Amino acid sequence: MATEERDRSERGTAGQDRGGAKADGEFVRAGNAFKDRITDEEGARWPVEPGRYRLVVSLACPWASRAVLVRRLLGLEDVISLAVTDPVQDERSWRFTLDPGDVDPVLGIAFLSEAYHAADPDYDGGISVPAVVDVPSGKVVTNDYPQITLDLSTQWTSYHRDGAPDLYPEHLRDEIDEVNEQVFRDVNNGVYRAGFASTQTAYDQAFQRLFRRLDELSERLGRQRYLVGDTVTEADVRLFTTLVRFDAVYHGHFKCNRHKLTEMPVLWAYARDLYQTPGFADTVNFDHIKRHYYQVHRDINPTGIVPLGPDLSAWRTPHRREELGGRPFGDGTPPPARTRGRLEA
Amino acid sequence: MATEERDRSERGTAGQDRGGAKADGEFVRAGNAFKDRITDEEGARWPVEPGRYRLVVSLACPWASRAVLVRRLLGLEDVISLAVTDPVQDERSWRFTLDPGDVDPVLGIAFLSEAYHAADPDYDGGISVPAVVDVPSGKVVTNDYPQITLDLSTQWTSYHRDGAPDLYPEHLRDEIDEVNEQVFRDVNNGVYRAGFASTQTAYDQAFQRLFRRLDELSERLGRQRYLVGDTVTEADVRLFTTLVRFDAVYHGHFKCNRHKLTEMPVLWAYARDLYQTPGFADTVNFDHIKRHYYQVHRDINPTGIVPLGPDLSAWRTPHRREELGGRPFGDGTPPPARTRGRLEA
Repeated sequence: MATEERDRSERGTAGQDRGGAKADGEFVRAGNAFKDRITDEEGARWPVEPGRYRLVVSLACPWASRAVLVRRLLGLEDVISLAVTDPVQDERSWRFTLDPGDVDPVLGIAFLSEAYHAADPDYDGGISVPAVVDVPSGKVVTNDYPQITLDLSTQWTSYHRDGAPDLYPEHLRDEIDEVNEQVFRDVNNGVYRAGFASTQTAYDQAFQRLFRRLDELSERLGRQRYLVGDTVTEADVRLFTTLVRFDAVYHGHFKCNRHKLTEMPVLWAYARDLYQTPGFADTVNFDHIKRHYYQVHRDINPTGIVPLGPDLSAWRTPHRREELGGRPFGDGTPPPARTRGRLEA
Repeated sequence: MATEERDRSERGTAGQDRGGAKADGEFVRAGNAFKDRITDEEGARWPVEPGRYRLVVSLACPWASRAVLVRRLLGLEDVISLAVTDPVQDERSWRFTLDPGDVDPVLGIAFLSEAYHAADPDYDGGISVPAVVDVPSGKVVTNDYPQITLDLSTQWTSYHRDGAPDLYPEHLRDEIDEVNEQVFRDVNNGVYRAGFASTQTAYDQAFQRLFRRLDELSERLGRQRYLVGDTVTEADVRLFTTLVRFDAVYHGHFKCNRHKLTEMPVLWAYARDLYQTPGFADTVNFDHIKRHYYQVHRDINPTGIVPLGPDLSAWRTPHRREELGGRPFGDGTPPPARTRGRLEA
């Protein structure tokens, strides 16, 4: 999982890379170590260049899944290749055990940590996804996930597919940024603060903030189809990747259990609408999601047993969000159906 | 928690008294140690006698709650007194820390184990609730919970209140016994088999059996208001005490998460109908339930953090089960409203 610009002094346990607990039991997300940017500026250290970079993700990870989804919506699959790690890290963290010979076929490495150490031989921090790796040098360029998706939208425009949506339109950026900040604090990271709290008080606070925010978002989304404007934006991407994991892992494993997503009618319809929008569902892998959370976090699930539930069949049921107006891709078009396998580029 | 007539060779950890795991990871409930019966037979060793016995329970425990509920429906509150333990055991098991001086005011003991050892000084098995204690001698008479409720119905008839229901009518006993056996194996104990499974395979099997049985029960209860006959019986008591705990603890803590009870329409309406039937709700203490499961089972919830959810407000919403006919108390009457506190006799 990724990290955020927070207190980097606390480090999670091996294979979790998630931060640590303050004295009052509150979970604090670790910071991101590599913050270089790939840009389309003249003379950039890391220039936009098709085929040069590899996006390394876990499909379990909400932070990484943002990048997978944005890449898919923008049609960057043939421009930036994708490496999918095993959803279950070992003590050496993310590994390429889904690939033949347990080695990523493009980077030629067995563990993502090798790309981190190629960039910084002295690096001793957490190994997180998403990470963008420079294929020629094998070095991690960035694991700064909030910037990665924005740069896909704003720096790679020359390579977007025809009809790609503008996920970060200039005139809406202030509003998107504001929503993103609230959603990050209380929802995206809020579920982790609830799940990784080590005291009842820290948990209670995270839980209350989470559901207060979800109630506010429900009210907002009761009036409009998308979070900002009337098309899908970066704000929807970031809320979606948490909501799609809500019942599968956050509700039980992280004790975010005032209600299931299925019991919050507006958010549930909103999440289904997005899930049924071309490009979203094929970035979601519930098997990877469930196995990662339940098998890796042995400190909160010592047996490592993965629940068979929840029943997921209702994700495809009608949502009637069209009645609120809005068009997912605005004047653009949906991404074409995938021709390759679900997990590949 | 109570124990069942199963393999007694396996013992749970202190304070849990629940059985153990077989080699294949399947949870096996420990047997009950004290199986004497209190009867209305001439010359009985333990004769029916008002004021003589004390029923020791935890309101967290589904097996004990059966006895609390049957005692309440039959109006035996002034005939058999009630001792309520702290929902959180310590290493000496169930304790009377809710009482002044941490001592049960009638038995004069601090731990239920004292009554077990009064009955058998060499006893080294688990300490379970419900337990019926003979007040004059301080000895446990029985912790055999499946028999305890049946004997309240069949042996204490002279002391039942006017209008008390017949919870175990003779002409329906075969059918009640059959339903009870299925419900015990797949549901009452099935949730424990899921929650305490130590292998994925054992969990999967318990989960599948549980939900298959719940589906069958849904079908049955879609046609009739109560499980057997057209009034409340022992069969409903036994299913209710598991269903009322389902979303609060079994869904998340025990990973019984195909659906919440609130997502299984027939069972949810059935459970609400019972909950709203006089006598049921005032035996339910969600606070005790949640604190017990989440704080005691540190092997599956190491932090001991107790979830704030689920939202329980819908337990009082209309259920429309009256449309199926049936009368909860048949030709009898509902128990009168409680005049004393919720937790006392």
